Amino acid sequence: MDIKSIIAKKRNRKELTKDEIKVFVGKYTKGEISDAQAAALLSYIYTNGLTEREIVDFTLEMASSGDMIDLSQISDNIVDKHSTGGVGDKATLILMPIIASLGLPVAKISSRGFGISGGTIDKLESIPGYDSEISLEEFKQNVEKVGVSIIHQSFNLAPAESKIYKLRNEIGCGDSLPIIAASLMSLKVASGSNKIVFDITCGNGTYIKTREEAKRLARLLKRLGVLLGKDVGSVITSMDEPLGYSVGHILEIKETLECLQGRMSQDVGDVVVSLGRVILELSTNVKDKVQNERTIIEAIKSGRAYDKFKEMVASQYGSLEYIDNVEKFPVAKNVIPVYSTEDGFVERIDADIVGSIARYLGAGRMNKDSEINRTAGIELKKKIGDEVKTGDILAYIHTDDDTKVMGATQNLKDAFKLTTKKVIVKSKVLDII
Amino acid sequence: MDIKSIIAKKRNRKELTKDEIKVFVGKYTKGEISDAQAAALLSYIYTNGLTEREIVDFTLEMASSGDMIDLSQISDNIVDKHSTGGVGDKATLILMPIIASLGLPVAKISSRGFGISGGTIDKLESIPGYDSEISLEEFKQNVEKVGVSIIHQSFNLAPAESKIYKLRNEIGCGDSLPIIAASLMSLKVASGSNKIVFDITCGNGTYIKTREEAKRLARLLKRLGVLLGKDVGSVITSMDEPLGYSVGHILEIKETLECLQGRMSQDVGDVVVSLGRVILELSTNVKDKVQNERTIIEAIKSGRAYDKFKEMVASQYGSLEYIDNVEKFPVAKNVIPVYSTEDGFVERIDADIVGSIARYLGAGRMNKDSEINRTAGIELKKKIGDEVKTGDILAYIHTDDDTKVMGATQNLKDAFKLTTKKVIVKSKVLDII
Repeated sequence: MDIKSIIAKKRNRKELTKDEIKVFVGKYTKGEISDAQAAALLSYIYTNGLTEREIVDFTLEMASSGDMIDLSQISDNIVDKHSTGGVGDKATLILMPIIASLGLPVAKISSRGFGISGGTIDKLESIPGYDSEISLEEFKQNVEKVGVSIIHQSFNLAPAESKIYKLRNEIGCGDSLPIIAASLMSLKVASGSNKIVFDITCGNGTYIKTREEAKRLARLLKRLGVLLGKDVGSVITSMDEPLGYSVGHILEIKETLECLQGRMSQDVGDVVVSLGRVILELSTNVKDKVQNERTIIEAIKSGRAYDKFKEMVASQYGSLEYIDNVEKFPVAKNVIPVYSTEDGFVERIDADIVGSIARYLGAGRMNKDSEINRTAGIELKKKIGDEVKTGDILAYIHTDDDTKVMGATQNLKDAFKLTTKKVIVKSKVLDII
Repeated sequence: MDIKSIIAKKRNRKELTKDEIKVFVGKYTKGEISDAQAAALLSYIYTNGLTEREIVDFTLEMASSGDMIDLSQISDNIVDKHSTGGVGDKATLILMPIIASLGLPVAKISSRGFGISGGTIDKLESIPGYDSEISLEEFKQNVEKVGVSIIHQSFNLAPAESKIYKLRNEIGCGDSLPIIAASLMSLKVASGSNKIVFDITCGNGTYIKTREEAKRLARLLKRLGVLLGKDVGSVITSMDEPLGYSVGHILEIKETLECLQGRMSQDVGDVVVSLGRVILELSTNVKDKVQNERTIIEAIKSGRAYDKFKEMVASQYGSLEYIDNVEKFPVAKNVIPVYSTEDGFVERIDADIVGSIARYLGAGRMNKDSEINRTAGIELKKKIGDEVKTGDILAYIHTDDDTKVMGATQNLKDAFKLTTKKVIVKSKVLDII
């Protein structure tokens, strides 16, 4: 059973056996199968697909390629939330304390940002003192005592997945649904959660281009959940603008705190409430949509979610002084307004462009080892549907780097698509599956 | 035009433009496109094919990725012969002096052996003094004066082709006809020949498995010849046994000399005469098959081909003393007979196994930098159709390495498939296209 025969088998549209998948994942992780060979296999999987059985085996083999975290002694009801990638996406930061405040244990292993998607861990580490690399023991204790912990993926969690993820992007088959599904589920199997909600972002700048594709992925994830003994739901959201008003680390932490105090933009509200009610449906006996949405909103209004956020930060050694006095957070040297040069209504704000500019300004890593600047980013003053007059401020650019102001200003203006007609604001939430 | 979009285009069954092919070949040669990316593209080419136009562009781009040899000042009738790989294949060594003796200029750039196929250059270098790395100038002079020169591919000839060839084998898509065709033709374009005969070996142990596939490749090569302004013919030969009686460097040189003196096995004769008559059809006004075959046979019988061989060897500083007295060539320390343990008729001699054993005995490189032992090899005493009695000698093993005798003996015996019924010997030549 050598790799060439496995490649040829998938090329000939045959189903791979569990053993063949085991050999591929195992040997590729160890470097005994080359990138070129793995690329050939992925290419044929892209065109010829995988059966449900094959996807399950890929999931299990990738999951068990590294450390497996066992949270079963805490609860068999561990909540997790995963986004397929968004610009300005602070939903995890808002939602996790909400869920924990409702008594459901949340164990979230997050990654750092790469590309134009910011990382939850990088954002949390903007809070002075916040330790995202506490031990696994402490993580478990926090989930048990505080009800929530968000830590950095510093274990050897599903190394096969990250190797395949990298390769997928290299060869441009990032949008292969069976591989995406196996990839996402393998991380969840390895990290021990079992009530999982996926935020599947779709549109330009994401790897899921259409709503139909997103729905197919959501159905596949649900089905895999059944096969793997996990409850899975998905919220499909459109990426026709960044989520909320801010993109950048400290800016997003500040917005998160605003949101947890009940002041949030329509789009953030829609997404958070939808994700939250799916989690409640998966984890509690209450299946009523309206009631669950009310529960989520109430957790914010009552201040309990905000308190839980603070409790989580404190339990991971983050300074509450900053949380209580957000003006203490440092601000970028340059905070430059970007003015509109036309009248109209905002129809679209290209999230891909905004994310790229934020990264350019210092808010994202240009490569794996880049330093990020936590004050850098973009603050939107207009969102889809807003009326704009020439001379109005569309957004602020935050950066320490004087040389980047001019280019960023022009590009950011171009990210705003205006129209002469009034724009009806649609919910970011397209489907819940 | 980045590589991911080129990959996606071929995945979507679209025709690549000349520029896209240029970008791929150019950047891959320079290492700016990764093996994984190239593997993905090759995989989609494997399944979705290439149009004739695409193959021509691949051919030209691979050809021009390195040195291009211009032989047009010598003649616009330069003969070349290329085999897709055979065990015991000494046809080049026999045929090239035959053709040169008929007044047609032969310019042959060959490679060293790798895998189980021996290299023409390695064989020639068994003749003490033979210099296969004479300058390009001297090569051209020899083609002009002697009428034939065979040198080593020591230029940077179509480096893209060799990189892609290696990758093709790594990912198990060695049998992709459009890629094979582009690969073969690119070498011919780069080396400046224009009357080309291909020996397409098919069967077990070759990368063309069936006669039908070999015919498709032959037709494709002919068509590419038309598009590239070259006259191309192919002889399709079966690899159901090694060609001739010997496998190994000095052993094959000795057999070549026997053949050039008119003593050759039926299979070698069939192949050499067929290849030769195709060359005459391509290069002269005589199109009559029988007449051309007679011309080839006559070149041998008259001794002119043998003299031309000696002239070629002498012009490249090889010792004629050895040619005139073949007993001067060194012989392996062990020359061990392999006996038959059954009665019957030889139905098949697995060329793949024989080639592997010869390599194991020292006649082939185990990796790129291995030394080869020029005395090592296998001397067959029985060929397909021969009757065999228990205790008859099937073959001799030649090796300096005592430890390898036992294993090689057993395996070599297993390479002979005997049958109880008389075997009708078929010609090795299956088709001429």
